Amino acid sequence: MSIPAARKILVAQGGGPTAVINQSLVGVVLEARRHRGIDLVYGARHGVRGILNEDFVDLTQETSHNLELVAGTPASALGSTRDKPDLAYCQKIFEVLRAHGIGYFFYIGGNDSSDTVRIVAEEARQAGYPLRCIHIPKTIDNDLVGSDHTPGFPSAARFVAQAFAGANLDNAALPGVYVGVVMGRHAGFLTAASALGKKFDDDGPHLIYLPERVFEIERFLADVKAIHERHGRCVIAVSEGIHDASGQPIAARLAKDLEHDAHGNVQLSGSGALADLLCEEIKTRLKIKRVRGDTFGYLQRSFVGCVSDVDQREAREVGEKAVQYAMWGDRDGSVSIRRNGYYSVDYELLPLEAVAGKTRVMEDHFISDSGTDVTDAFRLYLRPLLGSGMPDAFRLRPNPVARVLKP
Amino acid sequence: MSIPAARKILVAQGGGPTAVINQSLVGVVLEARRHRGIDLVYGARHGVRGILNEDFVDLTQETSHNLELVAGTPASALGSTRDKPDLAYCQKIFEVLRAHGIGYFFYIGGNDSSDTVRIVAEEARQAGYPLRCIHIPKTIDNDLVGSDHTPGFPSAARFVAQAFAGANLDNAALPGVYVGVVMGRHAGFLTAASALGKKFDDDGPHLIYLPERVFEIERFLADVKAIHERHGRCVIAVSEGIHDASGQPIAARLAKDLEHDAHGNVQLSGSGALADLLCEEIKTRLKIKRVRGDTFGYLQRSFVGCVSDVDQREAREVGEKAVQYAMWGDRDGSVSIRRNGYYSVDYELLPLEAVAGKTRVMEDHFISDSGTDVTDAFRLYLRPLLGSGMPDAFRLRPNPVARVLKP
Repeated sequence: MSIPAARKILVAQGGGPTAVINQSLVGVVLEARRHRGIDLVYGARHGVRGILNEDFVDLTQETSHNLELVAGTPASALGSTRDKPDLAYCQKIFEVLRAHGIGYFFYIGGNDSSDTVRIVAEEARQAGYPLRCIHIPKTIDNDLVGSDHTPGFPSAARFVAQAFAGANLDNAALPGVYVGVVMGRHAGFLTAASALGKKFDDDGPHLIYLPERVFEIERFLADVKAIHERHGRCVIAVSEGIHDASGQPIAARLAKDLEHDAHGNVQLSGSGALADLLCEEIKTRLKIKRVRGDTFGYLQRSFVGCVSDVDQREAREVGEKAVQYAMWGDRDGSVSIRRNGYYSVDYELLPLEAVAGKTRVMEDHFISDSGTDVTDAFRLYLRPLLGSGMPDAFRLRPNPVARVLKP
Repeated sequence: MSIPAARKILVAQGGGPTAVINQSLVGVVLEARRHRGIDLVYGARHGVRGILNEDFVDLTQETSHNLELVAGTPASALGSTRDKPDLAYCQKIFEVLRAHGIGYFFYIGGNDSSDTVRIVAEEARQAGYPLRCIHIPKTIDNDLVGSDHTPGFPSAARFVAQAFAGANLDNAALPGVYVGVVMGRHAGFLTAASALGKKFDDDGPHLIYLPERVFEIERFLADVKAIHERHGRCVIAVSEGIHDASGQPIAARLAKDLEHDAHGNVQLSGSGALADLLCEEIKTRLKIKRVRGDTFGYLQRSFVGCVSDVDQREAREVGEKAVQYAMWGDRDGSVSIRRNGYYSVDYELLPLEAVAGKTRVMEDHFISDSGTDVTDAFRLYLRPLLGSGMPDAFRLRPNPVARVLKP
């Protein structure tokens, strides 16, 4: 395939925002502006939808200073979209790219976005139009195949670890059962990150429920009962995607069992239903009085001020590398992260077909035999990603005083 | 009243944990250990309940190094309790204090705790037992009378401001309606803190609902509709304590209106019910498709790694000052914070009766005439409390590109 003649690039952001997706955007823009072969850097507003609407901003006119500030700001600065383009949609995308003389297309997103890039690239090839297409990885779910991890995941994982470290301290101060529901419909990586909030042996989360394992309510209640009897309290991390053996989401099933049909459709994200339903089960069946549930919701992906510096620099680099692959390479692809040693990374360009539309889930060796904890292999995997300056928790040492009235 | 002869002090922590309550504890312990008149510093485990059970730890044996580390750790290191002692309970507390020869009693807590201190002090006086009693303020609700603000509130306010700054960016990237439910049953200070997450004119939260104002669902829907039509999106901060004109919580009322009786009792904290119910109203009545709700729950008071440095140092000082008032003063009382200039504080010892059992709510001049926003007076009040290093958000400037296909 020939090198594109056009001197314009287009970059867009798709799917759920992350804490570092703007690092990748700015990596693309600043690196592209350094290349003599590039005259204009366009950004599409609200992802592929903005391409269809020709809703472009000229990022060449932005100051590098403001770009650096935007890079440090979470959530997609260009706006995002939930549109999942089919073939006809991708054909329209290609028509717009051709009409604007775009020679390079960069799409920052998850596995749906990589599939869009793949189809658009195929359209260009069939039309004989010189277009270089690069997918830049991004997802808090960490569910892209072919990468050690995905930009956005480490910062969200850091939020989850810090949240559980705090929830554990709160629960130790006022004992009871605490259920924290974490995002991740198919992959349990983010829920598993809760384990990195543990410091002392008796710290929570004491139980972790992942979508990679079948959830059984009776076993869950038995687990909670055992922990509560041992520690006088119990902190539980639950993935929003937990499901029964048939694949039915537990939120939907519990709602039905409890005749909560008035709820109508049970929505997984942006709703506290799963946490509330699990708490109700624990209260009713185990007769435990103090049971509290939180759904981390959008806080875990949008909270300003909780970011991994490792994630920031890697997100920046995948954007830069994407431009370098496009300018100096001779093929389309998806930028991936490969881990070297303890801890550094390299990047490589995978074929789009190797990533597009595929979903990674947690590998078995990351999950304990009990199915309700992570392994040391997972701790070793995740810890360096969380970055520097992780808060640490301390406790008073026991120095008991003898009783006087009731010795 | 005579100066106590005993050379033992007892300190305890009550009510909901905060990010800085251990600063006050360590302020008491380290300051007390400096005084020659003190031999032993005891801590009661789990507040007044620990006193009844004579469950004490000897904090004199703790290293000052570990105490400093504990000071930087959120949530009550001694453990807390939700017990609200009545007269008989307080009499038992006094009996234990007398049996252990305690001369100084420090209780770190909110207005219920200050009332406990008041009753215990009264018991000691009636018994002619020399006991110095000092209440040390703490509450994320900021609802103690007589203080400019209460330790714990600034850090929780910082969490809420950062959370809304992020939620606003997320909502701008993927437009829709976002409802964030914040703690505070009677006082709206913490919910109002969401306003400090705004930077640009069109940033959310666009609407703020406080327990100081009557909540009307029809007016709420009209407000949301107007904002959504203007901005194409809407970010809303809601206090868990919002209620109708009769004082009935909206969570309970909506659940009834929507025939969600299967829920049983509607609980305000530790449940996502209010956010879910408001979202359902917006979806059903306004026909808006993308509506998401989060309940900040325990994250807002327990999250590790989000703390105001101003809050930290003030919480430390109220603990230190409590010991100084006790050792050098001649009366019981509650330590209060008075603001001087812009921005510094002084401390004073208020009579226990001036604080005990009373609840402060947001002053009228902090709430806009619309009832759904804060005033500049509130921004000026809260901003210095949030401390240094607040994250800032940046955006790309509009540099639109002319359309080619559909000009």
